[in-house]
Amino acid sequence: MSLDLGVEIGEAIGLVAGTLTTIAFLPQVFRVWQRRSARDISLPTFILLCSGVALWLLSGVLKESISLILANGVTFFLAMGILVGKLRFDRR
Amino acid sequence: MSLDLGVEIGEAIGLVAGTLTTIAFLPQVFRVWQRRSARDISLPTFILLCSGVALWLLSGVLKESISLILANGVTFFLAMGILVGKLRFDRR
Repeated sequence: MSLDLGVEIGEAIGLVAGTLTTIAFLPQVFRVWQRRSARDISLPTFILLCSGVALWLLSGVLKESISLILANGVTFFLAMGILVGKLRFDRR
Repeated sequence: MSLDLGVEIGEAIGLVAGTLTTIAFLPQVFRVWQRRSARDISLPTFILLCSGVALWLLSGVLKESISLILANGVTFFLAMGILVGKLRFDRR
């Protein structure tokens, strides 16, 4: 009963957490594309992040988890936007 | 049975995905602190990310989920390292 309540509150907090970590990448996409500058952005970071988020998405599809699919679907496009910006604007 | 197998494979892929999205931030921490430069890093992105990951961690504690606690514990310190670097090296 106590663990059940913990799990329910934990799920609710997880929804807020997932929303925050998903929309977090939006201002980074805007910053890179508006300033057309990405020297300080790490290429390996966004290659690893895009790969990991794509696997999270696949995991969500296999587990038929709508929350995993939605959160990682959105994050994948945002992280790809930063990765493409890095490749395009990473000049000295 | 088919859904059960999907859930198991989905969990296994989730472990790989979680490892990738966790270690992803390591090269970004190194890049900011080695070059002492963070102009292209978005401040709202890393404020939102640190807040969201802290809530994921709390959610993991309430759900007694070791994987959530481990992944988000590590990610929190890495994301904080980038946030502190941004505040310290964000000069023109």
